[in-house]
Amino acid sequence: MEIMQTQKLELLKLKRLGIDTYHENILFLRADCSVCVSEGFTALTRVLVQFNGKQIVATLNVVYAEILGAGEAALSEIGFLRLGAQPGDCIEINHLPPIDSLKDVRAKIYGNALSEKAFQAIIKDIASGYYAGVELSAFITACSGNNLTLAEIIGLTKAMIESGTRLNWNREIVVDKHCVGGLPGNRTTPIVVAIVTAAGLTFPKTSSRAITSPAGTADTMEVITPVDLSLETMQSVVEKEGGCIAWGGSVNLSPADDVLISVERTLDIDSEGQMIASVLSKKAAAGSTHVVIDIPVGPTAKVRSMEEANLLEEKFIAVGKAIGLLIDVMITDGSQPIGRGIGPALEAKDCLAVLKNDKEAPLDLRLKSLQVAARILELAETAEKGKGLAMAMNLLDSGAAYKKFERICMAQGGLKIPGHAAQMTTIKSEVDGTVIDIDNRKIAKIAKLAGAPSSVNAGVVLLTPIGTKVSVGDVLFEIYAEAKGELTYALNYLNTGNQPISIV
Amino acid sequence: MEIMQTQKLELLKLKRLGIDTYHENILFLRADCSVCVSEGFTALTRVLVQFNGKQIVATLNVVYAEILGAGEAALSEIGFLRLGAQPGDCIEINHLPPIDSLKDVRAKIYGNALSEKAFQAIIKDIASGYYAGVELSAFITACSGNNLTLAEIIGLTKAMIESGTRLNWNREIVVDKHCVGGLPGNRTTPIVVAIVTAAGLTFPKTSSRAITSPAGTADTMEVITPVDLSLETMQSVVEKEGGCIAWGGSVNLSPADDVLISVERTLDIDSEGQMIASVLSKKAAAGSTHVVIDIPVGPTAKVRSMEEANLLEEKFIAVGKAIGLLIDVMITDGSQPIGRGIGPALEAKDCLAVLKNDKEAPLDLRLKSLQVAARILELAETAEKGKGLAMAMNLLDSGAAYKKFERICMAQGGLKIPGHAAQMTTIKSEVDGTVIDIDNRKIAKIAKLAGAPSSVNAGVVLLTPIGTKVSVGDVLFEIYAEAKGELTYALNYLNTGNQPISIV
Repeated sequence: MEIMQTQKLELLKLKRLGIDTYHENILFLRADCSVCVSEGFTALTRVLVQFNGKQIVATLNVVYAEILGAGEAALSEIGFLRLGAQPGDCIEINHLPPIDSLKDVRAKIYGNALSEKAFQAIIKDIASGYYAGVELSAFITACSGNNLTLAEIIGLTKAMIESGTRLNWNREIVVDKHCVGGLPGNRTTPIVVAIVTAAGLTFPKTSSRAITSPAGTADTMEVITPVDLSLETMQSVVEKEGGCIAWGGSVNLSPADDVLISVERTLDIDSEGQMIASVLSKKAAAGSTHVVIDIPVGPTAKVRSMEEANLLEEKFIAVGKAIGLLIDVMITDGSQPIGRGIGPALEAKDCLAVLKNDKEAPLDLRLKSLQVAARILELAETAEKGKGLAMAMNLLDSGAAYKKFERICMAQGGLKIPGHAAQMTTIKSEVDGTVIDIDNRKIAKIAKLAGAPSSVNAGVVLLTPIGTKVSVGDVLFEIYAEAKGELTYALNYLNTGNQPISIV
Repeated sequence: MEIMQTQKLELLKLKRLGIDTYHENILFLRADCSVCVSEGFTALTRVLVQFNGKQIVATLNVVYAEILGAGEAALSEIGFLRLGAQPGDCIEINHLPPIDSLKDVRAKIYGNALSEKAFQAIIKDIASGYYAGVELSAFITACSGNNLTLAEIIGLTKAMIESGTRLNWNREIVVDKHCVGGLPGNRTTPIVVAIVTAAGLTFPKTSSRAITSPAGTADTMEVITPVDLSLETMQSVVEKEGGCIAWGGSVNLSPADDVLISVERTLDIDSEGQMIASVLSKKAAAGSTHVVIDIPVGPTAKVRSMEEANLLEEKFIAVGKAIGLLIDVMITDGSQPIGRGIGPALEAKDCLAVLKNDKEAPLDLRLKSLQVAARILELAETAEKGKGLAMAMNLLDSGAAYKKFERICMAQGGLKIPGHAAQMTTIKSEVDGTVIDIDNRKIAKIAKLAGAPSSVNAGVVLLTPIGTKVSVGDVLFEIYAEAKGELTYALNYLNTGNQPISIV
């Protein structure tokens, strides 16, 4: 066969157009530039952009006006950042080689089970930024529902661990916890870390940002202290204090997971297999050995029945075993939100109130945190079976937990006071009676429409838990937002048949 | 409950930045504009853009540099077109209301069957441009594999018919044909339409562009004559000549289908249920009554076994019956490409050669076209059972078919001569022997890497069908491309273990 040489392409000089496309690498080229003409590149072609030994995959937008001069190209803001390039630098543009792992994605779409090797190839390409949004979405969708076997979940989990950094703390026991979510305001983590590290255990906590909820632990903690820690900072915090509460994405643990989560958030889906892989890959990569998983069960929680919870428990334990983690699953009451605030700053205020033993602190959040801490203390054999709760309570009530929390925050970069939203409105009862039900999903939706988690001060404060007696005009809950439009948006949803609180 | 008023948002003046984003509506707003600040809009927020009674959904890019002035906004080129706006016009920007039908998409992802009503809501929103790429991808993936029941395929088909124009020809019999594809170069349609309309039947053919193949019928015909016909033009062509060969998308038949196809092309998947819905919705919307479906079967064709073909035949007939179409399925040999050319212009040349009774015309393409025409003539009872082939052959050999083809093209806007690609290379045999196998998928991939179908003159010309005796140095096939880079790209693929022709 005859072979042609790949010709060297012309270099183009970068100009800054200042276009923010969030996580999407966009390359802007003039329609008449030699690369477009000679390579047949058109809008939305995926191309390889190279500079100084680095490369990124970008999606092409073609420019027909004078915002770019001859010989110039531009990148979206994130493109400059990821490529490490500055305006004036010269980039090289090439065809994107075919992404082989997409064959495996198609096989999965057609119902075939994937091998660990296939997951490794897919996750590696995703972590490298080679997948377009529609391709990520196809992978996520194909793995959703109950479409992954246990062997596939293990394969995916291992692939996700291997795609990033793996921490090693050189300690025999490293504990962690995770809540499966679906329960607004269930923000026990900062309190649990404080109690458990005050007991002397090692607890290097890395948390996700929200997927489909109004706030993730990382979103909440970011209101109080920096969570975007470098690996070095995280290690020195844990070395010094025994624990930390960091955002997992910033230390490159399971990096593909954050890409997948950003698409899952858009789609508002959170599949079982990917959830297990996401949770346990982060735990293993963070160097944990003993992990407590909290599965709240309730009619409007993520897990709605005990059967479902039991199946999930089995899978967590089996996948944990396959990757060397000792898992303890606690199935808890998920019938209503925990704490009062729903949204990053509002939840942070609840956590601080509990830690400071404030008389007004939400009792349910305090109790739940103590229970989780107790399970960890017992799993790690720091407390004898049955003695965990007393130990946890003593650490919290004595102020030892809050002191430890302050020290961790100072080590992470300082302790901030949560702020207030610019807009607030109150929702009042129109009847006399007793609150008999709270729809978690509707409460979460209202908080999200009001701007949470991206507006950190936005959200909902719930004043009437199940069982509260209310009269006409009593405030049921408050909605906080930064922009009037967002408040309107939340109210429009509420007023079109989506009242979350049932009173009889 | 207290209700707040939706406030009137500020108007922004449109500026043209000349950015081509293909089919994606992108709205560019300054980070400091009042709409971004007051509404909390950030990059990738999906927003509603309104102008002069029209509205589009656009994805936001946020601009941090001086390419936009105060009070200015910009749209991608397609955004201007779809909104019918010009630079200087003032647009209004609002929050996108929640897309309710995404609930149904999520239900499908979790394995639930969808009702006809659910498909109607989804398809209506897709046709309105309300779905983002990741959402389209999730819908397509969830409906792929064998994930649609027969009832769901019927529901999807009906929803697709209802989403667009439905033609009515006021004739008792309106014929059509469709080939399930997977066979490069299988371009019988122009020839079949010419023969069948020459026999006096009504054949208002609308075709798709390529999904995963190097050329669709619309791509091929566009090389010869305009296919982007308005509904009025199409009707007058059919009124005058009894038939046409138009691109379906331009007459708004089943408009959601073209959106879905553009994503399927990116993903390189083409699912059974959606394929049946896509094909039959277009036929029904085009006003057909009698339809012949050609399913080529072969080891590298789209359908690989007789069992698969028979199951597909059953589904086509059942869905056809549910929507009032009489379907005849012919299962044909799909073991190798038909004709010599693969790619729009190269296939168009083959068609013209057959129509003109050129001595060099590919015999296999001639025979296949006659067989399909015969089945249509018999299904419509224009020819008696068993007499269709003789009638078709007489119409082709007498020149009546070519005369009719010329008249149809003139009515559509003129007859063009196919062009030549700028770059060509030949692939020669390295051994003596006999061609025993041709891999359709590899041949198609080479043609696509060379630029087909978007570069109309690009593709492959296959010179040695199965059974050909070849010597060292004989040309097996030619690769055509417009850009050198594309030729290199195709050759790189070929030379990394992807030789499509087996010789022993």
